[in-house]
Amino acid sequence: MKNQTVRIELQERSYCIAIGRSLFDDPRSYAELPAASHVLIVANSTVAPLYAQRLEQALRGKYAAIHTVVLPDGEVYKTWQTLNQIFDALLENQCDRKTIIFALGGGVVGDMAGFAAACYMRGVPFVQVPTTLLAQVDSSVGGKTGINHPLGKNLIGAFYQPLKVVCDLDTLSTLPPRELSAGLAEVIKYGPIADLNFLQWIEDNIDALLAREPLALAHAVRRSCEIKAWVVVQDERESGLRAILNFGHTFGHAIEAGLGYGEWLHGEAVGCGMVMAMELSRRLGLVDAAYVQRVKTLIAKAGLPVLGPCLAASDNAGRYLELMQIDKKAQDGAIRFVLIDGAARAFVREAPEALVREVVDACCVRL
Amino acid sequence: MKNQTVRIELQERSYCIAIGRSLFDDPRSYAELPAASHVLIVANSTVAPLYAQRLEQALRGKYAAIHTVVLPDGEVYKTWQTLNQIFDALLENQCDRKTIIFALGGGVVGDMAGFAAACYMRGVPFVQVPTTLLAQVDSSVGGKTGINHPLGKNLIGAFYQPLKVVCDLDTLSTLPPRELSAGLAEVIKYGPIADLNFLQWIEDNIDALLAREPLALAHAVRRSCEIKAWVVVQDERESGLRAILNFGHTFGHAIEAGLGYGEWLHGEAVGCGMVMAMELSRRLGLVDAAYVQRVKTLIAKAGLPVLGPCLAASDNAGRYLELMQIDKKAQDGAIRFVLIDGAARAFVREAPEALVREVVDACCVRL
Repeated sequence: MKNQTVRIELQERSYCIAIGRSLFDDPRSYAELPAASHVLIVANSTVAPLYAQRLEQALRGKYAAIHTVVLPDGEVYKTWQTLNQIFDALLENQCDRKTIIFALGGGVVGDMAGFAAACYMRGVPFVQVPTTLLAQVDSSVGGKTGINHPLGKNLIGAFYQPLKVVCDLDTLSTLPPRELSAGLAEVIKYGPIADLNFLQWIEDNIDALLAREPLALAHAVRRSCEIKAWVVVQDERESGLRAILNFGHTFGHAIEAGLGYGEWLHGEAVGCGMVMAMELSRRLGLVDAAYVQRVKTLIAKAGLPVLGPCLAASDNAGRYLELMQIDKKAQDGAIRFVLIDGAARAFVREAPEALVREVVDACCVRL
Repeated sequence: MKNQTVRIELQERSYCIAIGRSLFDDPRSYAELPAASHVLIVANSTVAPLYAQRLEQALRGKYAAIHTVVLPDGEVYKTWQTLNQIFDALLENQCDRKTIIFALGGGVVGDMAGFAAACYMRGVPFVQVPTTLLAQVDSSVGGKTGINHPLGKNLIGAFYQPLKVVCDLDTLSTLPPRELSAGLAEVIKYGPIADLNFLQWIEDNIDALLAREPLALAHAVRRSCEIKAWVVVQDERESGLRAILNFGHTFGHAIEAGLGYGEWLHGEAVGCGMVMAMELSRRLGLVDAAYVQRVKTLIAKAGLPVLGPCLAASDNAGRYLELMQIDKKAQDGAIRFVLIDGAARAFVREAPEALVREVVDACCVRL
């Protein structure tokens, strides 16, 4: 299997995503990075024992001082307190403005390490080394970084692009099955919003993906990154088009915030949120029932929930609406949803509250 | 007196600094700002009672929902905890991505409100309404935002430009004398690093400035902003030239951190730091003793300290060096100083430790 590269063209912020096997612990993956006295590897307590030493080893020939900070594992730790552990590690080791931060892990570590890089001394370079499928196909690409606020997800953050993304498919071999499924949610997402051929390919290869066949994973990661790159280069800071990447996320964020971060994985909430967004699209006359069922079946096959949790004993739909008010896409108090049609086009628009209530009622488990 | 405008040319991030009297409570000062459902005024407990209502009144015709958050006053509160009060106010009021944040106050409020704007939902627009001389001539211009870390000043932040800066000279009438002097430190700074004619003008007009004569203040603010603009447009993110604006700040930050934030005002530490930086420049053969004495005399006339505090009972110079290691300009563990020559040219370079020790010993009070 040949290594592949997807390039994100953003003028002076352009960078490459390297995709392949045996990449993250190969010094050649980092050969083009700038010189620095210090580098800091940010990992969590699950990923660090598996991969941190091998990354340190790969960087040893190029960098004199290699520090590692190990964060607690989980979305619930995507907070200012944990972010501060990164700042403390940087300062205790007297890391200067040229220090390169390496985000080694999944989406939470990538978002926090990236945000720390954006803010430390008003910006130091960073490299994404995603070790989960979700991070490889989505969160490590495009420069969204940030932390959660008790009132909502990713509400505090920055657009800040990495120097490079190194997607090593071999790291996916240690991924728990639940996390693999969560990553597949973001892979599936790219079908309805942008590429029906890719949706068909995922349907045809869902068993191979679940069996972690390297060729299937390689194609899924590459095509996902290509679509994401195509969107991000047109709208880096989400003034318009980029919001389509949030397909399923408006409902999904409500589920995550409503249950408490970490109860469901982000990808699980997005999987279920896509079913709701499909159903809303149907009720607005954009897609037919067969298409909703088709995507729902695929999401279920990927091992993801297709029924939303009950977030309130009385007026569950009202609770969803309340949580979705805080969504970053909301404007003038109106919630805006990513909707799709049958030709893989996506739109961001408001929807009548009564219709949203119907969708939540139809798509959630009963108490 | 006519109102004046200084423009900062940074492509799509360009903006104007309006300088004049009766500006901040005039709706016309905000006429060109974009529409928004919400605006949030950030002020502190000293400035809010003086000016918040008048700013609210000026914005009322244009914006439907005007919120105000009042922070505690002082550099010691330039922390994550206080920053979080801004995020909480934004979220409690369901402020969306188009919300405009108004920083009404001095440098601390401007830095924190600007950083909150940089991070809230990955970036919302903001306007600087500086009410101190220091903020009008320095901190509100150029897009440096951030908070302090217990280990050093402004270590966490972002480069993030405002939509507009409104410098109302009338607000300087309520400034305590100590704060006026602190602001003059940053005015004086522009002389040695960029403009000897301006240095001469300040010497000739120091009494008028201390008496707050509007024409003198107007010229000082305008010329300071012009010089700052000239530097910032050449090097927005401080990869080189911009560091010259930190003349006096390397020593100054050590004083602030060593005494505890807020003990000395930032401008006081910078005033004293400039004496040290002049003295270091002299010992490196860049300027003569007469020039050092000239600037020192002006700094003293402005009401600023010219002798540094003792930060450690034994090895005071060592304590200064230790604190300066954390400076953002440091590279590879070496402290870098902004030095000047007699022709108003500034350089950033390392200096022998022994020489720095001599300077600290010569420029500090004895225990």
